[in-house]
Amino acid sequence: MTQGTLVRIYLSERDGRLQELIDLLHDQETLSGLTVFRGSAGFGPSGKLHGSGLIDLSLDLPLVLEFFDQADKVASVLADLRPRIAPSHLISWPIDLY
Amino acid sequence: MTQGTLVRIYLSERDGRLQELIDLLHDQETLSGLTVFRGSAGFGPSGKLHGSGLIDLSLDLPLVLEFFDQADKVASVLADLRPRIAPSHLISWPIDLY
Amino acid sequence: MTQGTLVRIYLSERDGRLQELIDLLHDQETLSGLTVFRGSAGFGPSGKLHGSGLIDLSLDLPLVLEFFDQADKVASVLADLRPRIAPSHLISWPIDLY
Repeated sequence: MTQGTLVRIYLSERDGRLQELIDLLHDQETLSGLTVFRGSAGFGPSGKLHGSGLIDLSLDLPLVLEFFDQADKVASVLADLRPRIAPSHLISWPIDLY
Repeated sequence: MTQGTLVRIYLSERDGRLQELIDLLHDQETLSGLTVFRGSAGFGPSGKLHGSGLIDLSLDLPLVLEFFDQADKVASVLADLRPRIAPSHLISWPIDLY
Repeated sequence: MTQGTLVRIYLSERDGRLQELIDLLHDQETLSGLTVFRGSAGFGPSGKLHGSGLIDLSLDLPLVLEFFDQADKVASVLADLRPRIAPSHLISWPIDLY
């Protein structure tokens, strides 16, 4: 078991930055894995609720980009990410990695 | 970087409480963000498995309502939430918030 | 409030192990709950990106199997899981359980 860190970046479908960030994390940061989750509803600092209906065709649903790695590797990736991500849209927490 | 707390509430589509909780968290607790994730399968304390098929039209899939904020703000929201949520359906953990 | 542990197992749809692991965790480990989330895109150690398109019919999307319970219960489940899961596909972190 080693100490790792899990990172989350909160995006929305409409802001169109998902592919740019996937490319950055894959090509430049050479992470060994990454997962994107699409929320089925949510609201952000605007307070406007997205996707609250049972069937919702909105293209502005929340997207969460998530990755983890050993803590020292993630620290350097976080330093690169912070200037690119709006405040309160980037979080991390420690994990045990098996 | 500040200390935050992430909170998760586990619901199912069938219990129909999602909108009530979103309204509470948005209007009364004035959270700055919230995301709902729909699980693709799961089971709860009943032990009954929901949504195990590859294509599943069940309306009883797991719903996870998630939010985070600064730790002191979340502590007050948690105090309001606890009497409203069944035991073992509410969890939290500390995060770093950038 | 009690101390709990949340566990995640990273699978892909193609490797076909989801049902085997759900059965193990439900029948043998007698967990009280479990949720499966399907990622909408991702890449793993192969570096090959899965599901990057807006509409993607791939059957190799990431699957995340997640559960939590009291810390001592989870410790015994983790001991059983570790030999069954590839390195870096199993993570955990401490939670507060209400």
